Amino acid sequence: AGPREVWKKGGRLLSVLLAVNVLLLACTLISGGAFNKVAVYDTDVFALLTTMMLLAMLWILFYVFRTVRCPDAVPYRDAHAGPIWLRGGLVLFGICTLIMDVFKTGYYSSFFECQSAIKILHPLIQAVFVIIQTYFLWVSAKDCIHIHLDLTRCGLMFTLATNLAIWMAAVVDESVHQAHSSTSSASNTSHTHLASDPERADGHVGGDCSCDTAVCQIFQQGYFYLYPFNIEYSLFASTMLYVMWKNVGRLLASSTHGHSHTPSRLGLFRETFIAGPVLGLMLFIVGLAVFIIYEVQVSGEEGRTQQALVMYYSFNIVCLGLMTLVSLSGSIIYRFDRRAMDHHKNPTRTLDVALLMGAALGQYAISYYSIVAVVAGSPRDLLGALNLAYALLMIAQHIFQNVFIIESLHRGPPGADSHDTPPKEPCHGLTFANLDALHTLPSCPPTPRLAGSSPAGPPEAVAIISAPKGHWRSRCLKDISLFLLLCNIILWIMPAFGARPHFSNTVEVDFYGYSLWAAIVNICLPFGIFYRMHAVSSLLEVYVLS
Amino acid sequence: AGPREVWKKGGRLLSVLLAVNVLLLACTLISGGAFNKVAVYDTDVFALLTTMMLLAMLWILFYVFRTVRCPDAVPYRDAHAGPIWLRGGLVLFGICTLIMDVFKTGYYSSFFECQSAIKILHPLIQAVFVIIQTYFLWVSAKDCIHIHLDLTRCGLMFTLATNLAIWMAAVVDESVHQAHSSTSSASNTSHTHLASDPERADGHVGGDCSCDTAVCQIFQQGYFYLYPFNIEYSLFASTMLYVMWKNVGRLLASSTHGHSHTPSRLGLFRETFIAGPVLGLMLFIVGLAVFIIYEVQVSGEEGRTQQALVMYYSFNIVCLGLMTLVSLSGSIIYRFDRRAMDHHKNPTRTLDVALLMGAALGQYAISYYSIVAVVAGSPRDLLGALNLAYALLMIAQHIFQNVFIIESLHRGPPGADSHDTPPKEPCHGLTFANLDALHTLPSCPPTPRLAGSSPAGPPEAVAIISAPKGHWRSRCLKDISLFLLLCNIILWIMPAFGARPHFSNTVEVDFYGYSLWAAIVNICLPFGIFYRMHAVSSLLEVYVLS
Repeated sequence: AGPREVWKKGGRLLSVLLAVNVLLLACTLISGGAFNKVAVYDTDVFALLTTMMLLAMLWILFYVFRTVRCPDAVPYRDAHAGPIWLRGGLVLFGICTLIMDVFKTGYYSSFFECQSAIKILHPLIQAVFVIIQTYFLWVSAKDCIHIHLDLTRCGLMFTLATNLAIWMAAVVDESVHQAHSSTSSASNTSHTHLASDPERADGHVGGDCSCDTAVCQIFQQGYFYLYPFNIEYSLFASTMLYVMWKNVGRLLASSTHGHSHTPSRLGLFRETFIAGPVLGLMLFIVGLAVFIIYEVQVSGEEGRTQQALVMYYSFNIVCLGLMTLVSLSGSIIYRFDRRAMDHHKNPTRTLDVALLMGAALGQYAISYYSIVAVVAGSPRDLLGALNLAYALLMIAQHIFQNVFIIESLHRGPPGADSHDTPPKEPCHGLTFANLDALHTLPSCPPTPRLAGSSPAGPPEAVAIISAPKGHWRSRCLKDISLFLLLCNIILWIMPAFGARPHFSNTVEVDFYGYSLWAAIVNICLPFGIFYRMHAVSSLLEVYVLS
Repeated sequence: AGPREVWKKGGRLLSVLLAVNVLLLACTLISGGAFNKVAVYDTDVFALLTTMMLLAMLWILFYVFRTVRCPDAVPYRDAHAGPIWLRGGLVLFGICTLIMDVFKTGYYSSFFECQSAIKILHPLIQAVFVIIQTYFLWVSAKDCIHIHLDLTRCGLMFTLATNLAIWMAAVVDESVHQAHSSTSSASNTSHTHLASDPERADGHVGGDCSCDTAVCQIFQQGYFYLYPFNIEYSLFASTMLYVMWKNVGRLLASSTHGHSHTPSRLGLFRETFIAGPVLGLMLFIVGLAVFIIYEVQVSGEEGRTQQALVMYYSFNIVCLGLMTLVSLSGSIIYRFDRRAMDHHKNPTRTLDVALLMGAALGQYAISYYSIVAVVAGSPRDLLGALNLAYALLMIAQHIFQNVFIIESLHRGPPGADSHDTPPKEPCHGLTFANLDALHTLPSCPPTPRLAGSSPAGPPEAVAIISAPKGHWRSRCLKDISLFLLLCNIILWIMPAFGARPHFSNTVEVDFYGYSLWAAIVNICLPFGIFYRMHAVSSLLEVYVLS
């Protein structure tokens, strides 16, 4: 219905500019609100976020009720976008966010009289927003929309900016809370560090209102424990919105061309050796125990903190070391795997790769600062050595895991005849200058022939078509991905629910000073936590693909 | 000679990981060295940088003497890469960097006995590095290398990381120096703020060595004034290295296919109305005068600082307002321009666009923080109003200039018959589903025909081929680009050579506190300065293309 677009980048430019400016404004207010000295209050931040959510909701409703209803609005659907595990995760985290909103409303209602109304309005609006957005993404994540191009792009980018602003606000709020609770727990040595000082954690509440009642305290503790889910919800929604945005105005050759990666057989666990999941589950359970013991011990007296740190680092070193070795062996298996690389354009995968590489930077940065502090600093004790090993292994693990995941995501689909055990490799070594020849070929041809490069195809696409992989390889890869997946979950849980060895351990704090080190950790760690969650969703895809 | 590459992204992955890790290590040491409290010394930073430069030189020499000498090493050359103005700028800034290195060597030699040798070695090695790298980039910026793929990628990325590390070190050093000189000039009110306190500016020099002699002081002042050129040199080299890296292993269809944009006629200024360059030159000269007066007055007593700030802001508001209007009218002219959009793959242009959009973020961030401070802060005086107008116009100017430049860069070449004055538009409205049909077409066909989409071409590429533009439009666009170019140069000079109204003006410092505001400005301003320089080089390209 709509006219063909002359210049797609021009259409995108406007929406990117809108999102960048909205996001920077939100960033300014949120970071200003985080500092007590600055005269920007959290009510300003809440007001901004509420306005943004209302506007985003308006657009979503317009999209659902007008844009999609037009004829020819969605001629194509991108099979790669919004896989079921991403949408499932979105719903799961969305439900947790709704519970968090209930807790938050309850907490702020406890001292209703001395709060501004926006603080109670904000979680309520957020609950409505989460419901509407989750429905919207569930229904239309795969759409390649072809009308109202500019409006849809701006709407998607604005909604994306809203989600990122919510993410930033949650991360900042949690960091402020962590900082307050760690300083206050250092002074009164209570063994749970969430129950203390709601006013100071809150930052700007007047002095005559306090959260004394048991219900209020439960609400407050609850909502801080549910923050990680809210954070992941925003990020999941952001990635799905970005892929939708990339798909606006996209033309797919045919709906069968974007070969779907959904597994045809659903007997998932039958396909693995048992070693991977069992070992992963063992590490998961041990890790959970270590985390709980660490959290209980670390706020106690000096000796027990030391002990808790040694235990925490030892577990992490073992876990990271195993993960590194397993990722490496996965990469080695790929050296023998002669499946074709998938060169097709795929915005979902491009985003996944960029996010894995980008989010890893956060953990890299923390590790390098740790390494410099340990190497240049004076103490040469057990804890320093453990810290150094932990930081080095953390870098190695991120590198090898990223290499493994990225290579896995670029492998072609398994092929229908993946149950043939002997690797016969009949057409190994065939080189095609034209990618699409791979798809037009009926099956492996008896004689190697070089397809002439078509005039329009990008001539740099060169692929080697090969035999289906051996079955043991596929099973190994499934084992590896499940093991890594479980390890990543436990490594997500620890920092997401409040383990901060970075501050319990005094090496870096002494070396850089508290404020600099706190700034480094509070900026970089959210990316590290996001990396874990994103790696889990990518590894799930790797598992399905193998 | 080398085997065809199966999976290009895999080859890139390794080199990106190398560069990221090297860069993060450098970043850790440099940022640690910037803080006096942290036990990382600037000698450590110098040692790291010197090592990196030596390694990068080794690779460059290997490339020049071995890789390129192999047969079939460079089958294609990218016509878009390394245009003459970029290489010319590189040589210019390289010469200034060499002068800076002479000054730096002289400065550190003045108190040779109490310095570690690395401080004198570093500028000498840097001079050699600059000479070798400039030669290398001048000769091979256009290469699409096809052997030693992995080694070349890693070498290029390592050299890129080296340049970025040098850039970071220079920016940090300059910021530290600015901070020290502004605090010391506030205490002793000398009217030049570079002559004071070399030891403190230097940060870590022992107390018994001082720069007392006149020669030493000249050396020191000189090298701080030459820093901006060193910074731009590193960034120019980085962009060229990045494009070379993208071109490793790239196959171009033929050397004529990537249609070169070099102008056939060199009577450059004959093609413009005179208004643009004249107005631009006037603003440039006025700006230079304003800058000098501002620099002289701002370190004086309170009343004169106020006066200098009013003058500085007034000039900037006028300049930014004119630039916004001119960019906007340029975009409006494009609405009547029916040249085809150029959809060809072009790493140079993709990088240019990404850098323009990314570097503008720095200035956006500063402006948004200013706006929040002025709006939320109490003072409602002339300076506050000027500051607000300045910040708003700065955002508007960046947005409209980016839109104008990006649209200009995506226009096709002017075409051979651009001297026909009447716009005849014979095949306006033709829509092709296949881009390459544009090139296979002999000339404008008498009847519109729709080319069938070829199987391999991306089917989303849709272009409208049109008549050559009217001549007045081309002249207008040339005027506009020259005007914007001159304005960007003056707006580069002011912050690059030390104008910091952000600190002379007390609104933001009072609102955010000195340390937070200094962190914001020192992190964001280097990107803002880079944006200006990069806009100049892009506008030069726009001028040639129009």
